[in-house]
Amino acid sequence: MSLGQITIIGVGLIGGSLGWSLKKHGSCDLVVGYGRTQESLQQALSMGVIDRAETDLAKAVQTADVVILAVPLQAMESLLVRMRPFLPDSCLLTDVGSVKVGVVDAVAKVFGEIPPTLVPAHPIAGLEKSGVTAARSDLFEEQRVILTPLPETSRVALSQITELWESVGAEVECMSVDDHDHALAMTSHFPHLLAFLYMQLMGRQGGESLLPYAGSGFRDFSRIAGGHARMWRDISLDNRESLLPLLTAYKNQLDDLFDALDNQQGDDLESLFEQARDLRNQYRG
Amino acid sequence: MSLGQITIIGVGLIGGSLGWSLKKHGSCDLVVGYGRTQESLQQALSMGVIDRAETDLAKAVQTADVVILAVPLQAMESLLVRMRPFLPDSCLLTDVGSVKVGVVDAVAKVFGEIPPTLVPAHPIAGLEKSGVTAARSDLFEEQRVILTPLPETSRVALSQITELWESVGAEVECMSVDDHDHALAMTSHFPHLLAFLYMQLMGRQGGESLLPYAGSGFRDFSRIAGGHARMWRDISLDNRESLLPLLTAYKNQLDDLFDALDNQQGDDLESLFEQARDLRNQYRG
Repeated sequence: MSLGQITIIGVGLIGGSLGWSLKKHGSCDLVVGYGRTQESLQQALSMGVIDRAETDLAKAVQTADVVILAVPLQAMESLLVRMRPFLPDSCLLTDVGSVKVGVVDAVAKVFGEIPPTLVPAHPIAGLEKSGVTAARSDLFEEQRVILTPLPETSRVALSQITELWESVGAEVECMSVDDHDHALAMTSHFPHLLAFLYMQLMGRQGGESLLPYAGSGFRDFSRIAGGHARMWRDISLDNRESLLPLLTAYKNQLDDLFDALDNQQGDDLESLFEQARDLRNQYRG
Repeated sequence: MSLGQITIIGVGLIGGSLGWSLKKHGSCDLVVGYGRTQESLQQALSMGVIDRAETDLAKAVQTADVVILAVPLQAMESLLVRMRPFLPDSCLLTDVGSVKVGVVDAVAKVFGEIPPTLVPAHPIAGLEKSGVTAARSDLFEEQRVILTPLPETSRVALSQITELWESVGAEVECMSVDDHDHALAMTSHFPHLLAFLYMQLMGRQGGESLLPYAGSGFRDFSRIAGGHARMWRDISLDNRESLLPLLTAYKNQLDDLFDALDNQQGDDLESLFEQARDLRNQYRG
């Protein structure tokens, strides 16, 4: 299988790792990397992550067979506007965003419809680091990638994007945009919000003077609050429709916990903690 | 230095590790372990964690120079009631509980006053495992131990318990009971509650069907929800006076976050996340 020319828009950790993996596995003829500046593109070239670097968006996409958007969520719409005039009709269009509703809305707005070539994708891979220097050619091996094809998506497009991810070792699964965004809100985006709010509270309750008394529980629980602030702003805004009801539900649980503690309802507390623990202990990862 | 006979009430992970460490460092003449049943005591004897096993509380404490309570928080008061008639007046009394207000209240209730021999202590060491089989003779090396002496505590008692912990490699620090309980509520107890509530929410929003989509962020954030339900019930109840105001403050923050998300106030979100990240990134541990 060869997917022809693949153009990656944004050669950071995910875009870079994907280009590198595709090259390693011979999945395509050519990997073109598009970026705003030469610096990270030259780094990507010297690492062997891409075959060709482009800072001209038209040149980057006009001969592409697949275009992969690997830029921050809030940057996707303006890039789609700028590339639209140069994008071949048959070119497959996919992305690697953590929220799917936003990119689908952006494509619908820019194209006036959902083109049959659109196959939104989300590789569930580590996001702690960033930038092409953190890229790895094995980042997606045995990692889950969720595709969220739309009713308008063609079977051929879906099949080819599936092959693309499988060629780099990923395990591909399909679900609806809504199911994806709800699942990721619950498993990833919402805990990030909770961790950020927790650190905000610590800042108000003593701040860094408390850190010497923090142990391994704190270390692990709060690690995700060290994440990229702008990226999490984008994810939160894009996925707010899934996140808002979770915030409300969690607030109600806080009320119930407050009452149970205040009334010293030990059995209720223990039962809550047991159920939480039982679900947590089913996690294998 | 020798502290004479040290009796450890409850030979689990912490009590067992402390006995083992004291023996290894020659900090005392004799380590007696008290437990309700022979089984874990025999295990402790065979591991060399204690010198002598006792299931008779009177025999365990009547010749002791130091008694260390290393039992669950909710068990302390009844043990104090039972040992009180046999405890020598000069015997130092300390503990290893995660909350200090409860043990101080229990001692005051059982003794009718705070004796000058009381030196509450809290070694901040890993609690993920439990039982004497998880004990280690180096568990406290370079680990922080907080002592919370009372106004009634004698200088000699404080000095000897300080020496006890320093002899096993711990870094000893003193603070008030209230300061300790507030600091630990913020750095340890409150995040446990948040993690338990998060798993409760996941249980209501899809439960185990969501776990396949959970990555390393989930893994670390929710790890502490796998903790010992009864122990965390005890800690929560004992430290409720510090925890309840944190629950209220956090709920207010959830309200503010809800509004910021609902109104798409991207700058406010990014600023919140940045401040949270900056504090988190000051953590060294």
